Amino acid sequence: MTGNPVGRRSVLAGLLISAATAASGDHALAQEDPLPSWNEGRSKKSILDFVAAVTREGTPDFVPVPERIATFDNDGTLWCEQPMYVQLAFALDRVKALSGKHPEWRRKQPFQAVLDNDLASLAKAGEKGLVELIMATHAGMTTAEFEKIASDWIASARHPKFNRPYTDLVYQPMLELLAYLRANGFKTFIVSGGGIEFMRPWSERVYGIPPEQVVGSSIKTKFEIDKGKPSLIRLPAIDLVDDGPGKPVGINSHIGRRPIAAFGNSDGDFQMLQWATQSSGKRFGLIVHHTDAEREYAYDRKSSFGKLDKALDAANSNGWIVVSMKDDWKRMFRFA
Amino acid sequence: MTGNPVGRRSVLAGLLISAATAASGDHALAQEDPLPSWNEGRSKKSILDFVAAVTREGTPDFVPVPERIATFDNDGTLWCEQPMYVQLAFALDRVKALSGKHPEWRRKQPFQAVLDNDLASLAKAGEKGLVELIMATHAGMTTAEFEKIASDWIASARHPKFNRPYTDLVYQPMLELLAYLRANGFKTFIVSGGGIEFMRPWSERVYGIPPEQVVGSSIKTKFEIDKGKPSLIRLPAIDLVDDGPGKPVGINSHIGRRPIAAFGNSDGDFQMLQWATQSSGKRFGLIVHHTDAEREYAYDRKSSFGKLDKALDAANSNGWIVVSMKDDWKRMFRFA
Repeated sequence: MTGNPVGRRSVLAGLLISAATAASGDHALAQEDPLPSWNEGRSKKSILDFVAAVTREGTPDFVPVPERIATFDNDGTLWCEQPMYVQLAFALDRVKALSGKHPEWRRKQPFQAVLDNDLASLAKAGEKGLVELIMATHAGMTTAEFEKIASDWIASARHPKFNRPYTDLVYQPMLELLAYLRANGFKTFIVSGGGIEFMRPWSERVYGIPPEQVVGSSIKTKFEIDKGKPSLIRLPAIDLVDDGPGKPVGINSHIGRRPIAAFGNSDGDFQMLQWATQSSGKRFGLIVHHTDAEREYAYDRKSSFGKLDKALDAANSNGWIVVSMKDDWKRMFRFA
Repeated sequence: MTGNPVGRRSVLAGLLISAATAASGDHALAQEDPLPSWNEGRSKKSILDFVAAVTREGTPDFVPVPERIATFDNDGTLWCEQPMYVQLAFALDRVKALSGKHPEWRRKQPFQAVLDNDLASLAKAGEKGLVELIMATHAGMTTAEFEKIASDWIASARHPKFNRPYTDLVYQPMLELLAYLRANGFKTFIVSGGGIEFMRPWSERVYGIPPEQVVGSSIKTKFEIDKGKPSLIRLPAIDLVDDGPGKPVGINSHIGRRPIAAFGNSDGDFQMLQWATQSSGKRFGLIVHHTDAEREYAYDRKSSFGKLDKALDAANSNGWIVVSMKDDWKRMFRFA
C-alpha cells in the first residue's frame, strides 16, 4: 500500500469495482461480451466454454488459479509475421546500420546479400546464415545496450505493407483473449521462437505481459564488472532455441508448470500444443490459421514463415480449435 | 470469476478485507508490526525505510509496482543449509536408494564414499564428484518422475539436528519479510545455486513463491513422445550453474528485469548483490549472517557451505545490511 492518499484512493476504487463485479457474478458476464472482435461461432464458443469450465468451482474441470497457465506463440499468433519475421527485419536493419564499421561485409555472405537487398541469396544462406546474422547483430554488447537498440528500433520501424509501427500489427482478437483469460485468473506467457530480449522491452506495454512472463530463444550472457559497473555481456553463442521441441523445454525452464492452454499458428508450436493438451484434466489448444489475404495474409502449409502442416493435420484428432482469421475475426487490428 | 456462489462469496470477502485495509491506510500499518520476529534495530529499520521509500508515490525514490523485483537466495538465506545443503542430503539418500540397481557403486567413487558414509572421501571427490552424484540421481527420468521423487523425499526426510522436516527449517523472520514485500507490491523470486526442480515442488506451499518465480541451477531436458505421451527427459548435462556470476545470468534469463532488492548469505550471492544494488535508483542489499550457534549454526568465512568472505568485506562500502541472526532475530523458526 502506498503512503500517498491519491494512490490509496485509486487502489480502493479498483477494489470496490472488482467487488461489485464479483457480487453481480455470472449475470453481468453474460451480458458483456469479453471478445467483441470475435464473430459468433465454434471458435469463440469453445474459448468461452473452456474458461467457464475451468473456473467453475466444485466441478471436475475446475482448475485452481495458480495452475491456470496459458502460453502464446508470438510471431503469427499475436502479431503479423509476414512478409518476414519482425526480428529478421530488425537484424537486416542492424546489418545496414553497422556496415560502416564492417567494410568486409560488402564481400562476405550473408552480409553482402543483406546490403544488396538480395533476398534470394539471403534465403540460400539458410539457417547457418541466419545464425551468423543474429550473432553479428544481437551479440557483443551489454543487455542494457541491446535493450535500448531494440526499443529504439521498434519505436521507429514501419511495416512495409501497412506503413505502421510493428506493434500496431498485433491482432485485436488476441489482445481481447489475453485480457479475458487474465480476468479469469490465468497467467499469460509468451513462448516464442523469437529472441526473448527482443520482445521484453515492449511486451508489457503492448500485450500486458511482463518481461518475466516472456519465454523465447536466447543467446548466452556473461557477468562482468565493466568500468566499475556490473554488466551482462551478450555472447555469440546460442543458449536455447525456443521453437518446436524447444518450446516445452523453455516452458519447463521458465514456468515450471505445464500450461492448460496453448495458442500457436505453425508447426513450430506443435510440441507446445502437445505438451499443453495431451494430459489429464480440461485442456485447450488453438491454432490461428492465416486465411485472410485481404486484411492480412493467407498462407499455411508451404510458407517459409509460419509453415502450418503437421499441426493442421493433427488438430482434429487432438481437439485443437483452428481459427480462421477471415471467418472468425470481426476485426483484425485495432486501427482497422 | 467463478460461477459457484461459495467461491464468489469468498472472493468478495477477500476483496472487502483488502478494501478495508486500503481505506485505513498508513495508520493501520504503523500500528501493526509487519516483521514481529525481527528485533528493533538498524536491520529492521533499514528494511522498513526502504519499503516506505520505494512505495511513496510522487517522490524520487518511488518505484512502480512492476519493477519491484526482489530476489532471495535459498540455502542459508531462507532455510537452514547446515550441516550440509539439503539437496546434497537428498542426493546421498538417492544414491543409497538406487544402490541396489548399481552394484558397481560399491567399488566406485564417489558412490562408495556415500554408501560407506565416508564424508572425508566424499569431500576429496570435490566438485567433479558432486556433479557425478547429481547426474546419477537427478537425470535419466522425466520431469514428472523427478518431481514426485523430490516431493516424496521432502515430505519424509528429517534434519539430523532438529529432527524435523527440512521445510520446518525456514527462517520465520524471512517468511515475514517475503510477505511484507509482497504486501507492498513486490514480486518475490528465489535465485538459488540449488536445483530449480528440487525447489519448485514445495516453494509455493512453504514460501508463497510459485514455480515460475523460482530460478536455480538446472540440467538440460529433451522433449520426447514416450509411450504416446509427451515427456521431458532430464539429461545428464548441466544447463545453468546459478551461483556466483551465474546468478545475474539466471536473473536476466528468467526475470528479464534488474532486481531492486537482493538477499543472500554467502559469496555465492556476491554478484547478485552487485547486480541488484550497483545501479541508479533506490536499491537494497541484505546479507544474513549466521551468528547463532545456539538456535541454529554459527559460521562464515571458512565454511564449506555458505562461505561468507568477499561479500562480508564488501558489505560496508556497498551499503549492504548485515543481519546478525543472533541479535536481529527474535525468533528463528516457526516451531521454536
